[in-house]
Amino acid sequence: MKKILEPINLIYPLPVVLVTSSDKQGSNNIITIAWTTNVCRKPVSLGIAIGKGKYSENLIKDTMEFVVNIPGKQLLREIDLCGSVHGDVINKFEATKFTPVDSSIVKPKLIKECPINIECRVVSISEIDSSNFFIGEVLKVHIEEDILKDEKEIDFTKLDPVLYAQEKYYSFGNFLEVRGFSKKSN
Amino acid sequence: MKKILEPINLIYPLPVVLVTSSDKQGSNNIITIAWTTNVCRKPVSLGIAIGKGKYSENLIKDTMEFVVNIPGKQLLREIDLCGSVHGDVINKFEATKFTPVDSSIVKPKLIKECPINIECRVVSISEIDSSNFFIGEVLKVHIEEDILKDEKEIDFTKLDPVLYAQEKYYSFGNFLEVRGFSKKSN
Repeated sequence: MKKILEPINLIYPLPVVLVTSSDKQGSNNIITIAWTTNVCRKPVSLGIAIGKGKYSENLIKDTMEFVVNIPGKQLLREIDLCGSVHGDVINKFEATKFTPVDSSIVKPKLIKECPINIECRVVSISEIDSSNFFIGEVLKVHIEEDILKDEKEIDFTKLDPVLYAQEKYYSFGNFLEVRGFSKKSN
Repeated sequence: MKKILEPINLIYPLPVVLVTSSDKQGSNNIITIAWTTNVCRKPVSLGIAIGKGKYSENLIKDTMEFVVNIPGKQLLREIDLCGSVHGDVINKFEATKFTPVDSSIVKPKLIKECPINIECRVVSISEIDSSNFFIGEVLKVHIEEDILKDEKEIDFTKLDPVLYAQEKYYSFGNFLEVRGFSKKSN
């Protein structure tokens, strides 16, 4: 039996990422975001939702660039910290002891401790009332060799990403099937 | 040691949903999508990426409405089927034996077998080359009572969602921590 309810956000679980941003003067920030997805295959693009009034919103709009850093589970405390304090009052690189590394193309820094870093340039901003949805074209990706199976395939067991759903963090599960399996077994 | 690579889609794992759509004449379709996220808290909104030229793109653009149906793991075969065949040649409600149920507000049908159904109206379309990113405002949600802890909290263990990453399906993992834990233990 189903209940009919008023709207709530239900697209979960989503992967936790750390978005780094910077203004033209070099002030920077790290924000924890789970409201993210891939958007386009050609050109490779992704999207991130950031609430209006956030410090990261201002930084991203200043340079129109950001970096998506994907952390593993061992960074859960740092993930939580970057989602719980404000970047305009606390320097999150200092608070987390993360190591900032120069990007190859964009101004925002990469987080060295995250096994994946994705350099992006903003190509679209959808302003939906209390939120900005930034779509970024991916310019360059940096991937830790240890989690690469080949040039394009990630070993997600080794990455061990953190998932988020309704104020809680979860781990990644187990392999089930390869896409297309239902056609092969018929 | 990190490798610097050309762009690939890396925001994974993402939750698998089944999007139902319909044109004004009542032709309908089901498409499997993992490229989805929450977008805004007020009003509650979500986004879905659909490649250009897909049958579902035409249906959604005709009515500017869609329904996001969230399936559990026991529907993995149907999930895979709806992502592997084309809706303009195969009626996916017939192929999956899913039961179409009238929505309360929008024209596209709900899938009865999915424990969560989210009725949406399109408020924004970002066209990024080979892809459309539809942002939908959530108008009404239907949730199976068995997976509800209270009016707003889902028991994700009971929902048992399917995750998707790089052509493979995965299961959901285990609870790790509550958001904000890093502040409490300091």
